Amino acid sequence: QSVFQQIWHILSQQAALGIMDKIKLGIVGGTGYTGVELLRLLAAHPQAELIAITSRQAAGQSVVDMFPNLRGHCDLSFVAPDIATLKQCDVVFFATPHGTAMNQVPALIEAGVRVIDLSADFRLKDAGLWEQWYGQPHTAADLLAQAVYGLPELSREGLKDARLVACAGCYPTAIQLGFAPLLEQSAVDPQSLIADAKSGTTGAGRNAKLSTLLAEAGDNFAAYSISGHRHLPEIRQGLNGISDSEVGLVFMPHLLPMIRGIQATLYARSTHEGQDWQAIFEQRYADEPFVDVLPAGVSPQTRSVRGSNLCRLSVLQAPDSDIVVVMSVIDNLVKGASGQAIQCFNLMFGLPESTGLEQIALLP
Amino acid sequence: QSVFQQIWHILSQQAALGIMDKIKLGIVGGTGYTGVELLRLLAAHPQAELIAITSRQAAGQSVVDMFPNLRGHCDLSFVAPDIATLKQCDVVFFATPHGTAMNQVPALIEAGVRVIDLSADFRLKDAGLWEQWYGQPHTAADLLAQAVYGLPELSREGLKDARLVACAGCYPTAIQLGFAPLLEQSAVDPQSLIADAKSGTTGAGRNAKLSTLLAEAGDNFAAYSISGHRHLPEIRQGLNGISDSEVGLVFMPHLLPMIRGIQATLYARSTHEGQDWQAIFEQRYADEPFVDVLPAGVSPQTRSVRGSNLCRLSVLQAPDSDIVVVMSVIDNLVKGASGQAIQCFNLMFGLPESTGLEQIALLP
Amino acid sequence: QSVFQQIWHILSQQAALGIMDKIKLGIVGGTGYTGVELLRLLAAHPQAELIAITSRQAAGQSVVDMFPNLRGHCDLSFVAPDIATLKQCDVVFFATPHGTAMNQVPALIEAGVRVIDLSADFRLKDAGLWEQWYGQPHTAADLLAQAVYGLPELSREGLKDARLVACAGCYPTAIQLGFAPLLEQSAVDPQSLIADAKSGTTGAGRNAKLSTLLAEAGDNFAAYSISGHRHLPEIRQGLNGISDSEVGLVFMPHLLPMIRGIQATLYARSTHEGQDWQAIFEQRYADEPFVDVLPAGVSPQTRSVRGSNLCRLSVLQAPDSDIVVVMSVIDNLVKGASGQAIQCFNLMFGLPESTGLEQIALLP
Amino acid sequence: QSVFQQIWHILSQQAALGIMDKIKLGIVGGTGYTGVELLRLLAAHPQAELIAITSRQAAGQSVVDMFPNLRGHCDLSFVAPDIATLKQCDVVFFATPHGTAMNQVPALIEAGVRVIDLSADFRLKDAGLWEQWYGQPHTAADLLAQAVYGLPELSREGLKDARLVACAGCYPTAIQLGFAPLLEQSAVDPQSLIADAKSGTTGAGRNAKLSTLLAEAGDNFAAYSISGHRHLPEIRQGLNGISDSEVGLVFMPHLLPMIRGIQATLYARSTHEGQDWQAIFEQRYADEPFVDVLPAGVSPQTRSVRGSNLCRLSVLQAPDSDIVVVMSVIDNLVKGASGQAIQCFNLMFGLPESTGLEQIALLP
Repeated sequence: QSVFQQIWHILSQQAALGIMDKIKLGIVGGTGYTGVELLRLLAAHPQAELIAITSRQAAGQSVVDMFPNLRGHCDLSFVAPDIATLKQCDVVFFATPHGTAMNQVPALIEAGVRVIDLSADFRLKDAGLWEQWYGQPHTAADLLAQAVYGLPELSREGLKDARLVACAGCYPTAIQLGFAPLLEQSAVDPQSLIADAKSGTTGAGRNAKLSTLLAEAGDNFAAYSISGHRHLPEIRQGLNGISDSEVGLVFMPHLLPMIRGIQATLYARSTHEGQDWQAIFEQRYADEPFVDVLPAGVSPQTRSVRGSNLCRLSVLQAPDSDIVVVMSVIDNLVKGASGQAIQCFNLMFGLPESTGLEQIALLP
Repeated sequence: QSVFQQIWHILSQQAALGIMDKIKLGIVGGTGYTGVELLRLLAAHPQAELIAITSRQAAGQSVVDMFPNLRGHCDLSFVAPDIATLKQCDVVFFATPHGTAMNQVPALIEAGVRVIDLSADFRLKDAGLWEQWYGQPHTAADLLAQAVYGLPELSREGLKDARLVACAGCYPTAIQLGFAPLLEQSAVDPQSLIADAKSGTTGAGRNAKLSTLLAEAGDNFAAYSISGHRHLPEIRQGLNGISDSEVGLVFMPHLLPMIRGIQATLYARSTHEGQDWQAIFEQRYADEPFVDVLPAGVSPQTRSVRGSNLCRLSVLQAPDSDIVVVMSVIDNLVKGASGQAIQCFNLMFGLPESTGLEQIALLP
Repeated sequence: QSVFQQIWHILSQQAALGIMDKIKLGIVGGTGYTGVELLRLLAAHPQAELIAITSRQAAGQSVVDMFPNLRGHCDLSFVAPDIATLKQCDVVFFATPHGTAMNQVPALIEAGVRVIDLSADFRLKDAGLWEQWYGQPHTAADLLAQAVYGLPELSREGLKDARLVACAGCYPTAIQLGFAPLLEQSAVDPQSLIADAKSGTTGAGRNAKLSTLLAEAGDNFAAYSISGHRHLPEIRQGLNGISDSEVGLVFMPHLLPMIRGIQATLYARSTHEGQDWQAIFEQRYADEPFVDVLPAGVSPQTRSVRGSNLCRLSVLQAPDSDIVVVMSVIDNLVKGASGQAIQCFNLMFGLPESTGLEQIALLP
Repeated sequence: QSVFQQIWHILSQQAALGIMDKIKLGIVGGTGYTGVELLRLLAAHPQAELIAITSRQAAGQSVVDMFPNLRGHCDLSFVAPDIATLKQCDVVFFATPHGTAMNQVPALIEAGVRVIDLSADFRLKDAGLWEQWYGQPHTAADLLAQAVYGLPELSREGLKDARLVACAGCYPTAIQLGFAPLLEQSAVDPQSLIADAKSGTTGAGRNAKLSTLLAEAGDNFAAYSISGHRHLPEIRQGLNGISDSEVGLVFMPHLLPMIRGIQATLYARSTHEGQDWQAIFEQRYADEPFVDVLPAGVSPQTRSVRGSNLCRLSVLQAPDSDIVVVMSVIDNLVKGASGQAIQCFNLMFGLPESTGLEQIALLP
C-alpha cells in the first residue's frame, strides 16, 4: 500500500467513527429527476450524510428500486414526510413541485434547520407576482425577504449565512449568467434583450405527461408556453438587480428532443462600438469554478456539460450588426438544479465550493 | 369494379400507350437526401416520368439497393452523368452539392432543356457575392440574371415561364415566409430582424462527416457557423426584395438532434402599436396551398410537417414588449428542397400546383 | 388542362354528387396513435368516406386541433360514442384499448354493420385464455367463433365475407410473417422457436405514462414484460394454425428508443440440411403486395417501412450452425395496426387490396 | 477547515512534490471514443499520471479543443507517436483501430513497458484465425501466448503479473459475463447458445461514416454484419475456455439508435429441470465489484450503466419452455472498453480494483 492509501484508510475509519462529523442532510420529494440527481451527486460528496429522503407515494420503497443506477450507492428507502425526522437534519433540500416547500419550510426554519429549496416557492421577492404566475396563494410570504437567491455567481456573499436558499431555476441560470457581464458593464441596451432558449424534456419533470412522451417530443421541435413562461418574472427580477435601468426581455422557450441540457442564444443591442466582448466575459468569470468562457469562435454544446455543474459560454458580435450574441449551455439537472443546490450547500457550510461537484461531463 | 376503377384503368392504359404524354424528367446527383426525396415524391406524381438519374460514384447501382424504401417504386439504376441522355429530358433537376450545376446547366439550357437547380449555384444575383461566400469562381454568371428564384409564394409569376429555377434554400424558405408578411406591410423595423433557426441533421447532406454522426449530434444541441452561414446573403437578398429599405438581419443556425425539420423563431420590432398580426398572416397566406397559419396561441411543431410540403406559421406579440415573434416550420427535405422543386415544376409545366404533393405529414 | 386532368375533374364531381357511392366508415376511439394513423391513411383512400369519429373525452374537439398534421385533410370533430350514428356506417373501426370493443360490437353486428377491431378483444379463439391474459371477463365470447383474424397473408379468404375482423397485433404480424414459410414447409423444429422482438414506443399507445417518457425511454434499451407479454398466446395460436405440431415459442419484447417500428429477429432449428431459405421465402411471398423479401445478405431496417404498409423480411442460415435466422420489420402503426385494418377493409369490400396503401416509406 | 481538509491539503502537496509516486501512463491513439473516455476516467484516478497522448493526425492540437468536456481537467496536447516518449511510461494504453498495436507493442514490451491494448490485436490466441477475420497478417504473433485476456471476472489472476493485456471487446464482455455462470455450472447445452445483441453507435468508433450518421442510424433499427461479426471468434474462444465441451453460438449484432450502451439477450437450453438460476448468478458474482445481478423479474436497462463500469444482469426461465434467458447490459465505452482497461490496470499495479471507477451511472 502506498502512503496515500494508508492515510486514506485512516481518514475513512475516522469518518466511520464519527471523529470527523459529516453534515446531516434530508431530501423532501426525492422521486423526481432533481431528486435522483441529488442522490447521484451527494454519493460523491465526502462531507454530506443523507439521513432521510421522503416521498408520500413511494414511502417504504427502496430508493434503488426506483433508480437502479444508484444500486450499491444508496441503502435508504423513501419515508413519508415527517417533520420530526427532518428536524434532525442540519439542512433539508426540497426537490418538490412548486407549492409544497412553502408549507413545510416555516417549521424547519423555526427549528433551526437550514433549507435549500430547488422549487420556485421562494424565488420571487414579490408574493403578489408569485401568486399571479403560479395561480395560488403564497403561504409563507414572510420568509421571502430572508430567502437568498441560489445562483452563487451572482449572490455568493449572501449564501454563506443563508438560512433559506431559493435555488435559481434552470432557464434563469443559463440566461442570467449569459446576460450578466453585458448588463454589469452597461454595454447593451437593457430594453433590447431577447432569450431564445431550448431545453431537454427532463425540464418538465418526472411526471406521466402526454407532451413529453418519446412518441410526442422525440424527433420534434417547437416553442412552448409562448404566451408566457413562469421563469420570465424570475429572470426579469434577476436582471433588474444587475441593470442600471429596467430590462425589457423577450423569453421564448423551446422543447428539445433530448433528455438533459439547456441552450440559450441571447441577443442584445450593443450601446458602444468596438467592445471586446471576449475580454469582458473572460474577466468576469476568471475566478468562477463553474463558468467556462470558451475561446472566441467556438460554440458551446449541451453535451459538453452533460452531468457536470458547468455553465459554458460564448460571445460574439453578430456580423454586420450592432447585436451582441451570447450562447449559454448548462445541464438543467445539475447547474440548473441539483448541482447548483450542492454548490449553495458548500458555501453555506464553509466547504470548498467545488466539493463533490468535480464530475467531468459525459461526452459522447 | 366501380365506375371509378374502370375509368382509372382506362386512364392508366392510355398513359402506358403514350396517349397521355408525361413530362420527361432527369435527376443529376440522385444519391443524396434531396435525391431520394425527389424519387419518393415523384413516384406519386401522375404527370412525371423519370427517365434518368445520374451519379458518378454509384453508376450501375440499382436505385433501390441504395434506398430500400423505394423497392417496388423505382426500377432505374444510376447512370454516369451524360449530356446526351439529359438532353432527352423536358426538365432536369440538379440535386448536387454547390459548384456542380453551374458547370452542366449552360449546355442543357442551350439545348432547350429546362432546369430546376436545388443547389445554391444560381440563388444569388451577384456573382461576386456568391464567389465570396462559396470560395470559388462562378462559371455561369451570365445565367444568373435569367434564373428565377424558386420560392413560389414570393416568385410565382416568374416561375411559369422560367427556363432555369434556383430553388430556395431550406433556412431561407422558412425564414422568408415568416418575415414576408411583416415586411410587405411595413409593419416592423427592417433593421431589427433576428432569426434563431434550428435544423435537423439532414440539412448537412448525406455525407460521411464526423459532426453529424449520431454519436456527435445525437442528444446534443448547439449553434454552428456562428461567424456566418452561407444562407445569410440569400435571405438578405430575398428580404431586401420585399422590404422598403435595406434589412438588417442576425441569423443564428443551430443543429437539432433529429433527422428532418427546420424551426425558426423570428423576432422583429413592431413600428405600429395594435397590429392584428394574426389577421395579417391569415390574409397574406389565405390562398396559398402550402402555407398554413395556425390559430392564435398554437406553436408549430416540426413533426406536423414531416414528409409534407407545408410551411406552418404562428405569430404573436411578445408579452410586455414591442417585439413581434413569428414561428415557422418546414420539412427541410420537402418544402425546403425536393417538394419545393416539384411545386416549381408544376408551375413551370402548367399543372395544378399541388400535383403529387398532397402527402400528409407523418405524426407521430 | 390535360385530358387526364379533365377526366379527373369529372370523376371528382361525380363523387361529390354521390353518383359514385363511397363506403361509409366510422371510427370508435380516434384519439390514439392508431386513430390518427387511420385518419392519415383514409385521407388518401378514394373509396372511403369517414362519417363519424368518436371519443368520450375529446367529444366536441376538432380532430385537427389534436392532430395538426391533418389540418386541411379532415374537417370532423370528435363525437361522443353513439350507437345510432355508428349504425349508419357500412363498417366501423375500433381503435380502442382492449376491453372496449367487446361491449359495443354485438349491437353493431346485430344491426348489420361490419366491424374491424384493431384491439385485442376478438383475437384469441379461447375466451378463457383471453380472460387469463387480460384479467377481465370477456363479454362477447359468442362472437369469437365468427371473428376472422386480420392478417391477410395468412387469412385472406376468410376476410372477404367477414362480418367481424380481429386485426392481428403488431408483434404477432411481424413474427408470424417471419415464421410462416418455415412452418408451412415443415422445415424447422416447431419446438425451437425464439423471437427476440423490439418495438418503438408508439406500441405502448398515446397515454401519459412514466415508462415511455422521452426522459425514460430515450437513449435507453431494455427488455420488458419479461415474465410474459399478452401477444404470446396470440402468436402461439397463429403459429399452431400453421404448424404440423404444437409450437414451443420464447418471445422476448424490448423497447426501442424510437417512435415507430418493430424489428424481430427470429431463430429456429432447421430440420433439414441444405435448404434454400431464400427461395422458400421468395416463393411464399411472390404474390403478396405487402411482403417484401430482401435480397440475400441484406438486413431489413425499420426505417425502410416507416409510414408504409410493408413487412420486409430477410432469411439466412447462421454461420456454423443449424439455426435459421429470419429478420422481420414493420411499422407497428401501419402494417401492425391501421394499414393492416385498411388492407382487411379493402378485401371485405372487394376493392383492390392496395387501395389507399401505396405510400412510400419515409427515409431518411 | 476540517481535519479532513487539512490532511487532504498535505497529501496534495506531497503528491505535487513527488513524495507519493504516481504511475506514469501513456495513451496511443487518443482521438477516438475510447480515448476520450480513458481521459475522463483517468482524470478521477488518484494514482495515474498521464504523461503523453499520441495521435498522428492531431499532433499539436490541444486535447480540450477536441473534447471540450475535458476543459479544466487535461492540459496536454496530442503528440506524434514516438517510442522514446512512450518508453518513459510505466504502462501504455493502446486505443487504436486494430492492426496498429501489433506493430508498436513489441518494442515497448522489450523496453519493459507494460501494455494494455484496447484493440483486437492480441485477443485471439490463434494468429491464423485472427488473420482470417481481420484480413491482414499478424505482425506480432509471438506475443499472443503471453497476452492476458482483459476480462477480470474471468481472468483476474493472470492480470496481476501481465506484461501485455488484450482487453475484451464490448460485445464479448456483455455476452461472456452472461453465459459464464451457466457454462461453469454445466447447466445448459453448450451447443444451444444464441446471443441477440444490440449496441449504440459509439461501438462503430469516432469515424466519419455514412452508416452511423444521425440521419441514417437515428430513428432506425436493424441487424448488421449478419454473415459474421469479428467478435464471434473472440466470444467462442472465451466460452470454450469455460465450457466442458465446444460451444455452438449464434451471434446476431444489431445497431441501436443511441450513443452508448450494449444490451444482449442470451438464450440457452437448460439441461436440468428446476435450476435456481437467480441463486446461481448471485453466487457467481457475489464478490465482483463490477457485476450486479438484479432482483428476479427486473430487466436491466442500458441507461442504468451509462458512464459506469458495471455490467448488470438478469436471468429467468422462459415461460413454458426449457430455455433460460439472460439479459446483460454494459456501457460499451466503459466496461466494454476504457473502464475495463483501467480495471485491468488497477489489478496489474496492485491498486484496489475499483480505484477511479466509482462513477455512478447517469440516469436519466
